[in-house]
Amino acid sequence: MSDGRAEVRRHAERGSNDRLDGYAILDESLVCHLGFAVDDQPFVIPVTFARAGDELIIHGSPASRLLRHFDGTNEAVAEVTILDGLVLARSAFNHSMNYRSVVCFGKPVVVDDLDERARLLDLVTDKLVPGRRPHLRQMTEKEVRGTKVIRMPIDAISVKVRSGGPGDREEADVDVWAGVVPMSLVAGTPVPADGWEDAEPPRHVKDLA
Amino acid sequence: MSDGRAEVRRHAERGSNDRLDGYAILDESLVCHLGFAVDDQPFVIPVTFARAGDELIIHGSPASRLLRHFDGTNEAVAEVTILDGLVLARSAFNHSMNYRSVVCFGKPVVVDDLDERARLLDLVTDKLVPGRRPHLRQMTEKEVRGTKVIRMPIDAISVKVRSGGPGDREEADVDVWAGVVPMSLVAGTPVPADGWEDAEPPRHVKDLA
Repeated sequence: MSDGRAEVRRHAERGSNDRLDGYAILDESLVCHLGFAVDDQPFVIPVTFARAGDELIIHGSPASRLLRHFDGTNEAVAEVTILDGLVLARSAFNHSMNYRSVVCFGKPVVVDDLDERARLLDLVTDKLVPGRRPHLRQMTEKEVRGTKVIRMPIDAISVKVRSGGPGDREEADVDVWAGVVPMSLVAGTPVPADGWEDAEPPRHVKDLA
Repeated sequence: MSDGRAEVRRHAERGSNDRLDGYAILDESLVCHLGFAVDDQPFVIPVTFARAGDELIIHGSPASRLLRHFDGTNEAVAEVTILDGLVLARSAFNHSMNYRSVVCFGKPVVVDDLDERARLLDLVTDKLVPGRRPHLRQMTEKEVRGTKVIRMPIDAISVKVRSGGPGDREEADVDVWAGVVPMSLVAGTPVPADGWEDAEPPRHVKDLA
């Protein structure tokens, strides 16, 4: 894909425009950072989302005033970054992070149709807690009306990944501990709501750990 | 502060413009999401950063072509979000996340002066791995020249926090496990670089865990 916006120039060896690589990173991320500009004022808001094919489905309620802006003509950008580690080199200059990052460009559209909105919200629920939705009742029409949903076609994608140890072989004899401290987002012990203190959490909850 | 950009309208009870609250969240975050627009095209890039007083210090190398844009006249936005948990309610509608999120607005400036740049880069190193910098040599002039640094005064700030269990008391009798699955970013066992396999990692490395 030759889209200048999505070209990785700095550390080009870490970059690609491979959709499958990018989609795997998107699918692993729980929050995406949605950027757009209104009258030259940039905004970035964190949103929950899911990917469906070549589109992002964005759960829009946290910022309804801003999302009116999306009618399919205005550009937006959705970015996710998974931090995999801190890279501690012998010099400050060679310190780095291991990460997997994706930037998607597209023109989002607010979904008006209620049936479609309900279907897309199910995808977001499925993504956040896989396997939970069959245990839940269907959303009511009032609930669907009270939730904004945005579809953003992924017109261009840019993927950037760093992994491995510090890139400072020329200073390997410097007497400073060097290496990588892995980082990961992990689920802790579930905290049950009132009434569920003595119950075993269901399989789909345990599977989050 | 009455700055319309920073006003939290959706779930206003979760929002504030308290700088101390926001600064604590910024200081705990390792990556920030920097948003800006160039000729109506929005961009969001993940960057490492530190906070110094009422400014963000942004390590700019990953996107040098874009950061030329910053001469103190163009608006940018820096957002961080710490995910604290998945909130599993009895209904899909009441599912949520626990999080602490900050959005900062300001007009960034690229730092030209080399001494100032070196000083600010030290702050970024101090933030990423507290206590490590005294173990490292000073940056060379060539290294400082090869690194971009941006200062962004925090002209307005918006803080949004959700915590606690699911907000679905009206459905407390529904027979579905409900509660919170805590999430946190944790450091794993350090992976030493070649030559350090048998050494005990120093205090400042162990302190990351």
